[in-house]
Amino acid sequence: MIQPLAVSMGDPAGIGPEIIAKAWERRAARGLPPFFAVGDARAVTKVWQGPVRVIRDPAEAAGAFDEGLPVLGVADGGEITPGTPDVEGARCALRALEMSVGLVRSGAAGAIVTAPVSKAQLYQIGFSHPGQTEFVAERCGISGENAVMMLAGPDLRVVPITTHVPLASVAGLLSIELVAAKGRATARGLARNFGILNPRLAFAGFNPHAGESGKIGREEIDVILPAIEQLRAEGVDASGPFAADTMFHGRARTGYDVALCCYHDQALIPIKTLHFDDGVNITLGLPIVRTSPDHGTAFGIAGKDVAEPGAMIAAIAMAGEAATRRAVRA
Amino acid sequence: MIQPLAVSMGDPAGIGPEIIAKAWERRAARGLPPFFAVGDARAVTKVWQGPVRVIRDPAEAAGAFDEGLPVLGVADGGEITPGTPDVEGARCALRALEMSVGLVRSGAAGAIVTAPVSKAQLYQIGFSHPGQTEFVAERCGISGENAVMMLAGPDLRVVPITTHVPLASVAGLLSIELVAAKGRATARGLARNFGILNPRLAFAGFNPHAGESGKIGREEIDVILPAIEQLRAEGVDASGPFAADTMFHGRARTGYDVALCCYHDQALIPIKTLHFDDGVNITLGLPIVRTSPDHGTAFGIAGKDVAEPGAMIAAIAMAGEAATRRAVRA
Repeated sequence: MIQPLAVSMGDPAGIGPEIIAKAWERRAARGLPPFFAVGDARAVTKVWQGPVRVIRDPAEAAGAFDEGLPVLGVADGGEITPGTPDVEGARCALRALEMSVGLVRSGAAGAIVTAPVSKAQLYQIGFSHPGQTEFVAERCGISGENAVMMLAGPDLRVVPITTHVPLASVAGLLSIELVAAKGRATARGLARNFGILNPRLAFAGFNPHAGESGKIGREEIDVILPAIEQLRAEGVDASGPFAADTMFHGRARTGYDVALCCYHDQALIPIKTLHFDDGVNITLGLPIVRTSPDHGTAFGIAGKDVAEPGAMIAAIAMAGEAATRRAVRA
Repeated sequence: MIQPLAVSMGDPAGIGPEIIAKAWERRAARGLPPFFAVGDARAVTKVWQGPVRVIRDPAEAAGAFDEGLPVLGVADGGEITPGTPDVEGARCALRALEMSVGLVRSGAAGAIVTAPVSKAQLYQIGFSHPGQTEFVAERCGISGENAVMMLAGPDLRVVPITTHVPLASVAGLLSIELVAAKGRATARGLARNFGILNPRLAFAGFNPHAGESGKIGREEIDVILPAIEQLRAEGVDASGPFAADTMFHGRARTGYDVALCCYHDQALIPIKTLHFDDGVNITLGLPIVRTSPDHGTAFGIAGKDVAEPGAMIAAIAMAGEAATRRAVRA
């Protein structure tokens, strides 16, 4: 039996509090494991009329879970206005994230699920990481190269090898070492978190038609193929590089367990085209389980009771399954 | 009433002959307009047992169409082995393409539909165009910048602003002039071929999250936005640049008639994810109508009677509709 999951509330003015509460409402129907929210309880009560149970210790969460949404408070910030983010909210989001990671690291929580934050607000309070993924990785003592962002939906899993960098800089960032490291961490992560013991990794090419044997760019020949060969020598079931445009239709998707892509949009376009409402972001390569819904704060609809909790529910379910699998293997 | 369509057979060793014949079989069920194949009749009879009617003039096509697949022969080449391309086949494909374009230009055929060719084989016989699109454009006296490749399926239309070039070179190729020219030709082409008189053009950003206001690259600010503003000043309904990863899910697609993308995979990944089996390539900006199925020669399955004719059928249907619309307006 795993510990309850810590769900950091993200920006209190975003849709995080609402979708966490809505996920709690559907806990039975969706068979979700016990979880508790971490953040300012007022962010929930502002946008949701259901029962909240403020707890002081994660150990109270399991008992409270049937009666209401357990909320482990962080030091209160300023006034909360759904849809209107401010730096007080960013401080609150960061405290919730930090506390949640600590609780999972210490074993008091079973996994961390992170609701969306506003990077623009976080940057204003001195946050210097590209995103929550890198922050969590650092707190776990893992280098960015070995932490892998994977987006997963029912029909597709993708890993972007590079993420939030200018597209023109990607060619210079791709190296045999980076591609191989991401492949290695992905293979281990799929085994550890999903129970896929010898996962099939398919690598996308960088150029149109995967470069057509060097006629349209050489990144496939100079970087991706050598990395694939290195992984195969290590026993990883790696294949490619494939023309990216023909990798993501239904029949093609049956050929692999995860597609590794060279850059952000190459991975994010297909997953969001197919799984816009239920895509989950899971960080592989960490000593803990961390997932998040694959969407943003959606300030435009915050507080209007229209936010869809599908991705949050999927993120909680996936975190619970991964944590259970890892607990069994440990 | 439009003239019969000319369907160039493409590489005789590819699946072109088979899918043209299968489209003919389904002509009534799918309501296809009369068409005739252009190429070596032996390429069809090698892989298909149905009735072939060899014609010597396109004027015979309409009369023959009910009895069999009309084939307008080009000078015979060498032996044809399905699945095994050679330079003789490439010469045959090029003759068929050239003759088909000429027939449409002269008014003897209503539109051209091109089956897939092998660029590798064509390059060996001195073909110097990036693809059939550019060849057709040149034969029509249109510069490459003003000819636009659009991929269209039932749920999505996309235009790649740059096509078969190394991804690392795209940033340097994007210019305000190029983006605006492609937008202009796309808007005109949608009106002329599809009857969408004031089409909504949505432009994708180049960088992750469309650059996040310049934090992850400046192509949006320096190139794409000025081009959009120029188009809007000309009365074109252009919007963006948008984060590419959130442009292609169902709800987002209702907001535009066509998505203009910065590079090959940004456009081709979503269209092939959604419409792998029925995507059509239509060239906008030409004085004639030209479509093709959005797939390759598929040598691996040629001659095995397993090729799916869905995209060829869609290409013939779209060409017929566009030619009819243009004939009415002319």
